[in-house]
Amino acid sequence: MADLGAIQKKILSFRNERDWAQFHDPKNLAETLSIEAGELLENFLWKTTEQSRNLTAEELKNVREELADIFIFLTYLSEEYQIDLL
Amino acid sequence: MADLGAIQKKILSFRNERDWAQFHDPKNLAETLSIEAGELLENFLWKTTEQSRNLTAEELKNVREELADIFIFLTYLSEEYQIDLL
Amino acid sequence: MADLGAIQKKILSFRNERDWAQFHDPKNLAETLSIEAGELLENFLWKTTEQSRNLTAEELKNVREELADIFIFLTYLSEEYQIDLL
Amino acid sequence: MADLGAIQKKILSFRNERDWAQFHDPKNLAETLSIEAGELLENFLWKTTEQSRNLTAEELKNVREELADIFIFLTYLSEEYQIDLL
Repeated sequence: MADLGAIQKKILSFRNERDWAQFHDPKNLAETLSIEAGELLENFLWKTTEQSRNLTAEELKNVREELADIFIFLTYLSEEYQIDLL
Repeated sequence: MADLGAIQKKILSFRNERDWAQFHDPKNLAETLSIEAGELLENFLWKTTEQSRNLTAEELKNVREELADIFIFLTYLSEEYQIDLL
Repeated sequence: MADLGAIQKKILSFRNERDWAQFHDPKNLAETLSIEAGELLENFLWKTTEQSRNLTAEELKNVREELADIFIFLTYLSEEYQIDLL
Repeated sequence: MADLGAIQKKILSFRNERDWAQFHDPKNLAETLSIEAGELLENFLWKTTEQSRNLTAEELKNVREELADIFIFLTYLSEEYQIDLL
C-alpha cells in the first residue's frame, strides 16, 4: 500500500500545476462532494439493498471512479483547513 | 502522520465489534455519503464563496466531523469492493 | 385541493416580509435542495426497500416536512427563472 | 396556469402505463431526489453566488429540466404517502 501523505502531495501538485486552488473555496468544494456522492448513488438506484451487492463490471468501474473523486475532493477540503484526515 | 492502513483497520474493527457489517450493503453506504455530504454543505449555506473561507470555530468543528464521517464511510465502501483508495 | 398559484404567492409573500430574496441566489437555493434531499433520504437509511414502505408515524411526519421544504425551495428557484413548474 | 391536480394525474398516468409503480418504493424515490438535486447543483458549481444569477441559455435549459425532474419525483413520493403537497 502506498503512503497517504505521498498520494495527497501528488493530488495537490496536480492542482497547483493547473493553478486551480484559486477556485477551490470550501463552498464549491463542499458542492463537489454532494454532486459526486449523487453520482455514486446513481449506481445503486432502482436496486434493492440485496441487488446492490452484485454490480456489473461496468457499474463497479463507475463506483471506483466516484470513490476516487470523492477522496480527491476530501483531500482538497482537508488541505484548506489543515486537517489531517487520519 | 499515522498510517492509512492502520487507521482503516481500526475503522473496520470498530464496525466488527458492533456487528454492523450486515447492514452495510453498498446502497445504504452510498446513501450515507449523500447524507453526510449534505450535512457538510450545510456549513456553507447562505454564505458567499468568499465568506466560506472564514468559518467560525463552531462551524470549523462541524466541518472536521463531517469530513471524518465521509472518510469513514468511504473506507467501508472501499472495503466492500476491495478497492485500495490510494 | 387548493390552487398552486395561490400557494406559491403565499410562499413568496412569506419571503418578502422577511426580506430574504436578497440571499436567495440560485447557487444557495440549489444547495438547499441538496441538503433537504439528504435530510429526506435520512428517513430511509439502513432500511431495505421493502422496509421503506412502512415508516413509523414519527418518520412519516419528518418525510412530510422535508417534502414541504423541497417544494418551497423549488418554488423559490422557479420564481428566480420565471419558470412555470406546471 | 394549468391545474396542479391535472398535472399530477398526468404524471401518475405516465407511470402507470409503464408499470413503474412497483419499483417506486420510497427509498429509491428519495434517492432520485438526492441525485437530481446534485445534477441541479452542478449547474452552479465553480460559480460565485453572483455569477449564479447569470446562466447561459444552455445552463438555464438544464436547470429547467432538473427542476421538472425534481417536481415529478416529489409528486411520486407525495402520492406514496397520500400527501397533498399544497
